[in-house]
Amino acid sequence: MVDRNKLNEMIEKNPFCLEMGMELLEVEEGYARGRMPLSEKSLNMYGGMHGGCSFALADSVAGICACTYGNYVTTVNSNMNYLLPVQRTEYVYGEARVIRHGKRVGVYEVKLMNDDGDVLCTGTFTYYVLHAIE
Amino acid sequence: MVDRNKLNEMIEKNPFCLEMGMELLEVEEGYARGRMPLSEKSLNMYGGMHGGCSFALADSVAGICACTYGNYVTTVNSNMNYLLPVQRTEYVYGEARVIRHGKRVGVYEVKLMNDDGDVLCTGTFTYYVLHAIE
Amino acid sequence: MVDRNKLNEMIEKNPFCLEMGMELLEVEEGYARGRMPLSEKSLNMYGGMHGGCSFALADSVAGICACTYGNYVTTVNSNMNYLLPVQRTEYVYGEARVIRHGKRVGVYEVKLMNDDGDVLCTGTFTYYVLHAIE
Amino acid sequence: MVDRNKLNEMIEKNPFCLEMGMELLEVEEGYARGRMPLSEKSLNMYGGMHGGCSFALADSVAGICACTYGNYVTTVNSNMNYLLPVQRTEYVYGEARVIRHGKRVGVYEVKLMNDDGDVLCTGTFTYYVLHAIE
Repeated sequence: MVDRNKLNEMIEKNPFCLEMGMELLEVEEGYARGRMPLSEKSLNMYGGMHGGCSFALADSVAGICACTYGNYVTTVNSNMNYLLPVQRTEYVYGEARVIRHGKRVGVYEVKLMNDDGDVLCTGTFTYYVLHAIE
Repeated sequence: MVDRNKLNEMIEKNPFCLEMGMELLEVEEGYARGRMPLSEKSLNMYGGMHGGCSFALADSVAGICACTYGNYVTTVNSNMNYLLPVQRTEYVYGEARVIRHGKRVGVYEVKLMNDDGDVLCTGTFTYYVLHAIE
Repeated sequence: MVDRNKLNEMIEKNPFCLEMGMELLEVEEGYARGRMPLSEKSLNMYGGMHGGCSFALADSVAGICACTYGNYVTTVNSNMNYLLPVQRTEYVYGEARVIRHGKRVGVYEVKLMNDDGDVLCTGTFTYYVLHAIE
Repeated sequence: MVDRNKLNEMIEKNPFCLEMGMELLEVEEGYARGRMPLSEKSLNMYGGMHGGCSFALADSVAGICACTYGNYVTTVNSNMNYLLPVQRTEYVYGEARVIRHGKRVGVYEVKLMNDDGDVLCTGTFTYYVLHAIE
């Protein structure tokens, strides 16, 4: 697997992820888990997390999961299902797993959960493989 | 159509949209257009706009477009295609149009464009209709 | 759970499913499993199963899974990922599980597998709940 | 553009498309239009066209549209929205247009219409480019 520090940097050197307080918690080949606090600035008008923030967490953990195979990637498309409102939780947790790791195209599934482990959103992200992470 | 001020408030009273500098530019029944600056805090590690920010703009204009029929809505699911990197532009523009306005379920398509009008992302958002906007 | 015979009829009284030789193998509340032979008439020009046939199996098991809660449903949208070519197998197996069972909107995930249990396709189907199955 | 006969063969040499009576009506670079009759064997249990058949038409016209650039392709994923029941029409018409024609990945949007031109389904198909059509 690619150097873990390189993967951490993808969050730490990412202005928007930093701004939103995103953290990487765990990473293995084909797996990544992170979290983001439900902070004041991430709210929508109903007092839940804005769909863009939930999406950002999902895209970030899925992207890092894709990078565990040693290459940078770019998002081709994404599909997200909103199952429960993202509210009344300190953190939102995001977990990504590989579904298909192809030479050129990879598919990853994501779950977002609250502090109690309830699944709030599910998603699928497809990435195109760019060049090797040095 | 529902009172335009009510729709403006959906952006103005939305902490995350305010934080990101989102603005509503135009709205008609079944149509909405807005924009968001490509600011420092919206960047990803490649220097383009983070996918979560592009998504937030898309979800916001699609949601407002859905609300033009007079009801609050909640996102059921979304599908986004990333066609070109979101970079080298002052603003990202988002335009949403109704595809289907049902009594309970509505479907809206979104395009994101740069200052030159190039289409950067396309998406489809499905909403479930909640209660009337008073 | 709704009467199993009623669910079987959804396949048996369905001209296209009959035509393609679809069978329901197992059904519980929030779960359904079926199969379809890789027959001559289901082929595409590469000698694999046509994407429309794989899709039909996925949609059928997901729809029956949704109906286990006692109501007829209609498809709102679907998202499918094609992971491996659907070929060199006697049957294609489809397995659907509930992700969210809402009063009005339900979300179901589907996997299609070959005889060896390799996952060929994954998908998500969203249904709108109609009236009760009598 | 690639030889039109080659594109016609994709329907004519495709057992499932033949079985369902699919025809290619018009094809240009980045555009394809075809149709399929609403026949007895394409029905679902509600008397409309089975979702798998509508999907097959959508996938076929989108795939041919992708092939107009001179390469065979394979479906990466698809997203379909079902807007109106597919019934009371002699034919279902499918129209595909390029959204993005990349070197490796292409994105195409599809509309399905009835005899009166009402849009019944919309979809997006993503293809990975294989080798040249000789």
